[in-house]
Amino acid sequence: MTVLFHVRMDVSLPHDLDPHRRTELVQAEKDRMLELQNLGVWPHLWRVVGHNSTIAVLDVPSNDELHAFLSSLPLWEFTRVEVTPLATHPSDVDAQP
Amino acid sequence: MTVLFHVRMDVSLPHDLDPHRRTELVQAEKDRMLELQNLGVWPHLWRVVGHNSTIAVLDVPSNDELHAFLSSLPLWEFTRVEVTPLATHPSDVDAQP
Amino acid sequence: MTVLFHVRMDVSLPHDLDPHRRTELVQAEKDRMLELQNLGVWPHLWRVVGHNSTIAVLDVPSNDELHAFLSSLPLWEFTRVEVTPLATHPSDVDAQP
Amino acid sequence: MTVLFHVRMDVSLPHDLDPHRRTELVQAEKDRMLELQNLGVWPHLWRVVGHNSTIAVLDVPSNDELHAFLSSLPLWEFTRVEVTPLATHPSDVDAQP
Amino acid sequence: MTVLFHVRMDVSLPHDLDPHRRTELVQAEKDRMLELQNLGVWPHLWRVVGHNSTIAVLDVPSNDELHAFLSSLPLWEFTRVEVTPLATHPSDVDAQP
Amino acid sequence: MTVLFHVRMDVSLPHDLDPHRRTELVQAEKDRMLELQNLGVWPHLWRVVGHNSTIAVLDVPSNDELHAFLSSLPLWEFTRVEVTPLATHPSDVDAQP
Amino acid sequence: MTVLFHVRMDVSLPHDLDPHRRTELVQAEKDRMLELQNLGVWPHLWRVVGHNSTIAVLDVPSNDELHAFLSSLPLWEFTRVEVTPLATHPSDVDAQP
Amino acid sequence: MTVLFHVRMDVSLPHDLDPHRRTELVQAEKDRMLELQNLGVWPHLWRVVGHNSTIAVLDVPSNDELHAFLSSLPLWEFTRVEVTPLATHPSDVDAQP
Amino acid sequence: MTVLFHVRMDVSLPHDLDPHRRTELVQAEKDRMLELQNLGVWPHLWRVVGHNSTIAVLDVPSNDELHAFLSSLPLWEFTRVEVTPLATHPSDVDAQP
Amino acid sequence: MTVLFHVRMDVSLPHDLDPHRRTELVQAEKDRMLELQNLGVWPHLWRVVGHNSTIAVLDVPSNDELHAFLSSLPLWEFTRVEVTPLATHPSDVDAQP
Repeated sequence: MTVLFHVRMDVSLPHDLDPHRRTELVQAEKDRMLELQNLGVWPHLWRVVGHNSTIAVLDVPSNDELHAFLSSLPLWEFTRVEVTPLATHPSDVDAQP
Repeated sequence: MTVLFHVRMDVSLPHDLDPHRRTELVQAEKDRMLELQNLGVWPHLWRVVGHNSTIAVLDVPSNDELHAFLSSLPLWEFTRVEVTPLATHPSDVDAQP
Repeated sequence: MTVLFHVRMDVSLPHDLDPHRRTELVQAEKDRMLELQNLGVWPHLWRVVGHNSTIAVLDVPSNDELHAFLSSLPLWEFTRVEVTPLATHPSDVDAQP
Repeated sequence: MTVLFHVRMDVSLPHDLDPHRRTELVQAEKDRMLELQNLGVWPHLWRVVGHNSTIAVLDVPSNDELHAFLSSLPLWEFTRVEVTPLATHPSDVDAQP
Repeated sequence: MTVLFHVRMDVSLPHDLDPHRRTELVQAEKDRMLELQNLGVWPHLWRVVGHNSTIAVLDVPSNDELHAFLSSLPLWEFTRVEVTPLATHPSDVDAQP
Repeated sequence: MTVLFHVRMDVSLPHDLDPHRRTELVQAEKDRMLELQNLGVWPHLWRVVGHNSTIAVLDVPSNDELHAFLSSLPLWEFTRVEVTPLATHPSDVDAQP
Repeated sequence: MTVLFHVRMDVSLPHDLDPHRRTELVQAEKDRMLELQNLGVWPHLWRVVGHNSTIAVLDVPSNDELHAFLSSLPLWEFTRVEVTPLATHPSDVDAQP
Repeated sequence: MTVLFHVRMDVSLPHDLDPHRRTELVQAEKDRMLELQNLGVWPHLWRVVGHNSTIAVLDVPSNDELHAFLSSLPLWEFTRVEVTPLATHPSDVDAQP
Repeated sequence: MTVLFHVRMDVSLPHDLDPHRRTELVQAEKDRMLELQNLGVWPHLWRVVGHNSTIAVLDVPSNDELHAFLSSLPLWEFTRVEVTPLATHPSDVDAQP
Repeated sequence: MTVLFHVRMDVSLPHDLDPHRRTELVQAEKDRMLELQNLGVWPHLWRVVGHNSTIAVLDVPSNDELHAFLSSLPLWEFTRVEVTPLATHPSDVDAQP
């Protein structure tokens, strides 16, 4: 069994962050996001137009693992996260009897 | 070409709505939601746990058609809608070069 | 495996609700709350002082079942719900190695 | 086909930004805004009275390009952006049959 | 001389409004909006996608007349209005020396 | 003709601003405020009790000039401004026929 | 001695108020507002453009009398009130030594 | 031992409440408030200027009793309540060693 | 005559404030608070549980003096203040005829 | 007798905090949290998924002691705290007669 969550992540990097460190962190964030997708726990992600933000749908074994995945992101310290639990929609065409 | 949008819909029916009308409207809403999915403009939808709410991703030919689709929902009058334009995410594993 | 959620529920009954129906609904709500506790999915609940509100911790088999439990409450239509997923706290004395 | 968006941009420069860098960034922002207008994707822009803010209407080929245009602005890092999709108004005198 | 304003109007009709009165009011609103555009005080208007809302730019002889125009709209009583004064943008390509 | 605006200004100086620069800026702000009052564009101003804030009524030839006046204040960079257009009140004793 | 207050009043009349009662209340409100101005306790009032709202400055003998004046307004029951205490502004040209 | 709480209560009566019932409820509320003060659990109460609101300080034997006192107020159903726990202030002149 | 105000003060000290200066300021704040209480203008003050905040009731000769008292507090620059004018409560047991 | 409180704590460490000091503070916070649990005043605590936040239930002898416990946490200076008093829930299965 897995649990489905909608996660919005808004990243805000301090303007006085060392530029070298910034480049490293942004690359590491991308690497970790690809890694989590390859693990199969992150079926959907989109960029929010006009924002340094991500809307994602994660499908995880447990709440503890969701927290572990999110807090393993290298930009975690600079990210505002909003987690919304999802359920099957009664009008989803794939969920009709 | 199509345009991708994240749409959250929160339905709030007045408690003094005629019960017969309520049943009709809820069924008509479901029928229209299935119809729009079958049109291919509504790839994803989920129920928000604990709310009479839907999180959806729509993929539409234009803004005018998105507005036409949303306002064609029978519960439209009782729905608070929030529309967020989406773009390809630079860290989407399917968007890597 | 189960999933843990923090749920705040704020009930607001319309002042023009039929008094007989109100009494019935309030009693049915209490009965259903006791029933859910006896099912073992509702380990904690408290009254918020000064509000017609409940703070609860639910421990459920899945998101779909959490939504089913919450929407089975007779006052569901009159309740604003806020759901927050919980994980084990790293400083919980019972979670120390 | 193009897509129409209402965009509000609120710029907030850190007070401890190097004054030389600030002057460069502000000039580069102006140059890029003129360039985007000359590309034909930015039909309207106004200053919000009393704010270091812009209300704009953009007309773009796609959401991905809108995000690319906005994030290409040199002050992007210091700008809070709010994007609202627009459709034809049914009472627009130019849209009457 | 005229003064430029950005106006967002969100209409919310009570669900128990008499249907005949509703139809009359909606038609009268449209007629008045066309009339004001023909007066030349309303250069731009758009529908906000997913909302019963209008984003407009008005160009009026005075604040008193702006208030008179807005409060002459037949749905005025059911409309939440937000007025933002606009000025020439320093990076407007048409305002360059 | 002039246009009337209600303006609230909340000043927030960074605590690490150089003390000498702070003193200079505060004095320059006061000088400019007196100057604008002497120009006749600023008929009323009050201190908001308990805040480093001003409630003002300005009477200006145009929106562009209002923006120019406000952004000419030396503390402009550190000021949150809220502009509200005013009209004649129908119950103003001086506006009765 | 008197005390100075900034008061914003937003009136929102229920759409199902009896039309005759509405006309009476609106006229009574106007009469009372003129009366209070003639008492000398209400030096300034303006209409907020686009709103059924008033921005006022009142100059009253005490807080108890301010509350009595405001709650004596016939539309008081339908009015959201925001009261802000005012003091002499240190940069008011009339308050310079 | 007792526990100290700051309680703000904002009363909002529905405009279509039966006038006789309204008069009864308002009188009953006053009677109950006097009764609670005479019980010694309600040392301070003030009217918020411009609002049908009360700021109170209650000194109660327990949280359960505070909830019982507040929910025993006849206008409880029409009251928004905000409860803030208070402690001794380290700079209270009466709490100095 | 005096005027009664409810004042909430939330103090937020920058974490990079020089520790010696911090200690001095905190002590000076306490001294000034004791001084104002001894002046008789500050009848009540409490600590808000869980916050570096004060809820106070001040009884002052005028708005100008209230502003002077508040802005004389050494931590004023780091304090968010909320001022609410108070009146006699009609259900205060000490105000009954 | 003890008093029950729901406490949410959101920790936000400045990114420029000295890394050594950060490690020390985080360890000290954990030690103090374990200590308070061992004192018996802190029956429940959970991690909020996706946040550096804690939801806790504390059971304390008095408000003064609750404030003392919370402000004794080493990260207190960097923590936003929200305190909600709790009472016995009338539908708690353990509170039935």
